[in-house]
Amino acid sequence: MRVSIVGITGYSGLELVKLLNNHKKVTIASIHATKEIGRRLSDLYPYLVGVCDLVIEEFDAKKIMAKSDLVFFATPSGVASKLAQPFVEADFPVIDLSGDHRLPAYLYEKWYKKTPASDEALNKFTYSLAEFTDVKGKKFISNPGCYATATELALIPLLKAGVVEEDSIIVDAKSGLTGAGKALSESSHFVNVHDNYVTYKLNRHQHIPEIVQELKLFDDKVNHIQFSTSLLPVNRGIMSTVYVKLKKPLTNANLFAIYEDSYKDTPFVRVQDDLPELHNVIGSNFTDIGFLYNEVTNVLTVVSVIDNLIKGAAGQAVQNLNLMNGWDETEGLLISPNYL
Amino acid sequence: MRVSIVGITGYSGLELVKLLNNHKKVTIASIHATKEIGRRLSDLYPYLVGVCDLVIEEFDAKKIMAKSDLVFFATPSGVASKLAQPFVEADFPVIDLSGDHRLPAYLYEKWYKKTPASDEALNKFTYSLAEFTDVKGKKFISNPGCYATATELALIPLLKAGVVEEDSIIVDAKSGLTGAGKALSESSHFVNVHDNYVTYKLNRHQHIPEIVQELKLFDDKVNHIQFSTSLLPVNRGIMSTVYVKLKKPLTNANLFAIYEDSYKDTPFVRVQDDLPELHNVIGSNFTDIGFLYNEVTNVLTVVSVIDNLIKGAAGQAVQNLNLMNGWDETEGLLISPNYL
Amino acid sequence: MRVSIVGITGYSGLELVKLLNNHKKVTIASIHATKEIGRRLSDLYPYLVGVCDLVIEEFDAKKIMAKSDLVFFATPSGVASKLAQPFVEADFPVIDLSGDHRLPAYLYEKWYKKTPASDEALNKFTYSLAEFTDVKGKKFISNPGCYATATELALIPLLKAGVVEEDSIIVDAKSGLTGAGKALSESSHFVNVHDNYVTYKLNRHQHIPEIVQELKLFDDKVNHIQFSTSLLPVNRGIMSTVYVKLKKPLTNANLFAIYEDSYKDTPFVRVQDDLPELHNVIGSNFTDIGFLYNEVTNVLTVVSVIDNLIKGAAGQAVQNLNLMNGWDETEGLLISPNYL
Amino acid sequence: MRVSIVGITGYSGLELVKLLNNHKKVTIASIHATKEIGRRLSDLYPYLVGVCDLVIEEFDAKKIMAKSDLVFFATPSGVASKLAQPFVEADFPVIDLSGDHRLPAYLYEKWYKKTPASDEALNKFTYSLAEFTDVKGKKFISNPGCYATATELALIPLLKAGVVEEDSIIVDAKSGLTGAGKALSESSHFVNVHDNYVTYKLNRHQHIPEIVQELKLFDDKVNHIQFSTSLLPVNRGIMSTVYVKLKKPLTNANLFAIYEDSYKDTPFVRVQDDLPELHNVIGSNFTDIGFLYNEVTNVLTVVSVIDNLIKGAAGQAVQNLNLMNGWDETEGLLISPNYL
Repeated sequence: MRVSIVGITGYSGLELVKLLNNHKKVTIASIHATKEIGRRLSDLYPYLVGVCDLVIEEFDAKKIMAKSDLVFFATPSGVASKLAQPFVEADFPVIDLSGDHRLPAYLYEKWYKKTPASDEALNKFTYSLAEFTDVKGKKFISNPGCYATATELALIPLLKAGVVEEDSIIVDAKSGLTGAGKALSESSHFVNVHDNYVTYKLNRHQHIPEIVQELKLFDDKVNHIQFSTSLLPVNRGIMSTVYVKLKKPLTNANLFAIYEDSYKDTPFVRVQDDLPELHNVIGSNFTDIGFLYNEVTNVLTVVSVIDNLIKGAAGQAVQNLNLMNGWDETEGLLISPNYL
Repeated sequence: MRVSIVGITGYSGLELVKLLNNHKKVTIASIHATKEIGRRLSDLYPYLVGVCDLVIEEFDAKKIMAKSDLVFFATPSGVASKLAQPFVEADFPVIDLSGDHRLPAYLYEKWYKKTPASDEALNKFTYSLAEFTDVKGKKFISNPGCYATATELALIPLLKAGVVEEDSIIVDAKSGLTGAGKALSESSHFVNVHDNYVTYKLNRHQHIPEIVQELKLFDDKVNHIQFSTSLLPVNRGIMSTVYVKLKKPLTNANLFAIYEDSYKDTPFVRVQDDLPELHNVIGSNFTDIGFLYNEVTNVLTVVSVIDNLIKGAAGQAVQNLNLMNGWDETEGLLISPNYL
Repeated sequence: MRVSIVGITGYSGLELVKLLNNHKKVTIASIHATKEIGRRLSDLYPYLVGVCDLVIEEFDAKKIMAKSDLVFFATPSGVASKLAQPFVEADFPVIDLSGDHRLPAYLYEKWYKKTPASDEALNKFTYSLAEFTDVKGKKFISNPGCYATATELALIPLLKAGVVEEDSIIVDAKSGLTGAGKALSESSHFVNVHDNYVTYKLNRHQHIPEIVQELKLFDDKVNHIQFSTSLLPVNRGIMSTVYVKLKKPLTNANLFAIYEDSYKDTPFVRVQDDLPELHNVIGSNFTDIGFLYNEVTNVLTVVSVIDNLIKGAAGQAVQNLNLMNGWDETEGLLISPNYL
Repeated sequence: MRVSIVGITGYSGLELVKLLNNHKKVTIASIHATKEIGRRLSDLYPYLVGVCDLVIEEFDAKKIMAKSDLVFFATPSGVASKLAQPFVEADFPVIDLSGDHRLPAYLYEKWYKKTPASDEALNKFTYSLAEFTDVKGKKFISNPGCYATATELALIPLLKAGVVEEDSIIVDAKSGLTGAGKALSESSHFVNVHDNYVTYKLNRHQHIPEIVQELKLFDDKVNHIQFSTSLLPVNRGIMSTVYVKLKKPLTNANLFAIYEDSYKDTPFVRVQDDLPELHNVIGSNFTDIGFLYNEVTNVLTVVSVIDNLIKGAAGQAVQNLNLMNGWDETEGLLISPNYL
């Protein structure tokens, strides 16, 4: 299969190159950006010399449809809603890594403050958290957000099991700086981040409605979550620390059974005895999940960790690609975490 | 006033030297450790050459009482409970930075797994969170723990005001590595910490009973808290992120009034419009506190930040010293945060 | 003495505030910037609440001369050359932390690519590396660059002693990111710096002519140096690693005698047995110097470390202020290094 | 081919697992350590769950020879000299990643202060810097050290071309902390490394004789080098900054030609226009090399960067494995750098 990538110079686009390069069933047919047209990607990013020496091309939906079989959008929000439209109209497969096809129009406008995608597009796209969505044969995939992925994977098994006080969900999520994107800003200036820890977008993060919408599929009494986001002084990684009150006390064995019920056959979610740490997943498509129940407070703490650029973006997009096509879910994704 | 410091080579002991060195009313009469007796402190720690060239002496309670007017214990837990006893018996002033005089014997044994101090000692010591305790004229001060300081300062004003659902308190606290002490361990080995984020001692941290005990003084319906502790890949700093449900909705103005009621005359607590960040307090004795109420979830998020070695240890000890003696509370402590 | 600071929102300006705040002989009369006129400095930088609540004023040379006795320029290059002119004409004291009065006009133009200061100004200013310049009674001080300070202090004693092969000087200097200033850029974007190490401006750094000019005062056969600059993923600190061939072998004792000859009475230079490390000086005005001679290669390695914002900028400026006025050189500068 | 790894719990051993896991021609037959016998590797290192679940076995040379075709030693120095002896005697293939077979006995004793390997072993082993050694058909490979790899690759092309003043070589090399190994020590304690930069083992690093020995093969007038080693506050990566005086001035084109002559056909050395940075090689087997000639000082600066655990250890070991067996040199090693 030939694929094109739009938004190649963002962090997710670059990560897609890395993953697809080792994917046996896929060839990258073209890469697209709004700048640096005509230059080799490896001239701009010398780490890619000898890895990917493709030339950046202008975006042209027709040409992409002529030379490819599927297109990835790894663009900032507000772009795919426009640029993906010709593909939608032509029924040409799209995987959108951005937030543009995750929410109904009114919620998108409210949280993203941008013009939403067309109703036609929104109807065609399927939001696919890979472990819980059947996308075989689908053509239009909306890939989940990074915080959303970590948080939904932590909560869904509990909600499926019906054990959570729905009103009690509090999420204290932390992300490395690649999650904040490539644009220069005071908040991503080295000296302002290093040796610091900053909470931002409290109650205002655009992944909140996406998470609530997905959680509701598994427990329709979930109407809101308390969601806090902070910046860790690292490049990669998300830890989502989830606190919930339980409807009734559960043993460790009960809880393992609940998680195993959801994840026993999933290759990328690893349920653990101990609370997980970032090192164990960075560089890989794994999600590690651990939990601890406190009988005194009746609070269950669940911790899930992912690499925000892989399981939280490009890796899950490739996983969805595999699932759409009925390929082995792990193709191109069997990468060991870096560890150090 | 002449003072002695026991446990000089720990991080808190070294920080005391730095602060007392600039204190107009105090001279350091002697410094003590169990190792390196007879060596200059500045031979062991060359950053102190020209700053403090005192020689480390063996611990000897009688000699300390002969040459000093007060002794600081900056020792690991389990030490001051024994070594402070002669001072207690002689009614000689002590400020204990360790956890040895913070809890009743049965709680100390349960959480520290060590032999508690004598009943005589425990009766004499006053736990002093400096902003809320009157220690003028007291001789025995138990200085609060670092996590405890950040968390109590965030919560007490709300509890005093009676606005918190007591059963709902969840604290997600984060600390830099100096909080883990000087002892070498896998969990403080550089490569295991850098680029990582690790949750530890969940529900088991020894500051939990100390916090509950103090909070109860202001709202006796507080019986437990959910308390999570994690290691940030930085040297200094604690952020305590506190989530509580309110008994009824409050406006921002209500909340400011509540915090100002407690802190309008305190020189070291700064209540802020924005959620605070570590950079703004590191290197200083300040505690910065900010908050945000979410009407949708009825959760109030309060964030407080401190330098764990200063406001969380040596700085608050000096603040207590000032208050005991009726001196200006800020003497020796008017240090600007490093910022960068 | 009343002083004004122009360029208050740069890193050096902010550091001046911190130092002058604790200086017994100085009051900050006014602070100036090109933006944020009329706002409290502590509104922009909340770490300063309660430390410095001055309001930022527009630059106006006449008003400054009316309310102050001396003005500091902590401005980017190309600014003081213009704005300091009225003070020069009025014979009103100036300490310029920027590079604008360090070099003769032709060298300034060549290395800074900007219009130089007037000849009148350049004639009046004295370049003052504080340990080697007599500025008592001087009115116009050009404060050395950060890399220049670390490198000159390492080399001058050897050149004074006449032991260095002048043609052999190679400097491998490393700096933290505050040295790169506040402006946003790809090279100071967090993710590009963290976990990275980047060499920049090789042979093109504007401190090169300044260093050669100063070294020549002590050995006029020094005509050039090989000078390499790199970015360490830390906020503060410079290490200058200097390699020179010796004219003839020297013992450790010889070398100590050479350094002691220059530094035995200087309060801020500490000559050490071991090679120094950043931690020992960050947060202070100290320069630590150590060395090691290799008999096999006849190369002497000298390592000097400073805090680039203190000894490399604001601290040395205050030291020069003290020396100009015949005050104790250490006034306002007896700050312990942070260590951790 | 089946292989065994001795020293599995060191950083190089773990990295070998990661690489060999993706190697098409190799199966890991057994893994060995001195501790934790009988436990799954993934129980000790949860990042490996689902990646490598092999059980750690006791070292037993006979059993290894029975079940494997080749053994890697990823052990600390002083171990392979003893444990590899039965394999040497049995003519069973060994790749030793440690320093035990790199130097003649008298130099090993001098620099490592340990008992050297047997003469028989030292005679059989070939030191193989993969780009410059023909190891096809060899059975005993001594894999170069990490600093040595970066430094030799920077210098050999110049020495081959005969353009360097042999007496002038100065190397300022910097390494991340994984280079210091897994043992706990003050110098690898997080708070002592973070925000610090420390020079160590100056003129005493055990890679010095290895480098001189290898350089002499290409220019026998090289008798010594000035070699400085420092710790960067990062986990991975080495930058070797090399300064040499040239026998006569060379243009950039000359220098490119010199490097291309050595590296035009090597898949893992990338000669660059700009000076390289760590980010571009971390996570990969690449060595990036850049240079800049200074006509004023006649100093050529060459910068080479590697991932110390891959090209500096496990990656080069796999590259040597491929070359020994006549396989494609890149098998198992076509991994993109992490970049971020």
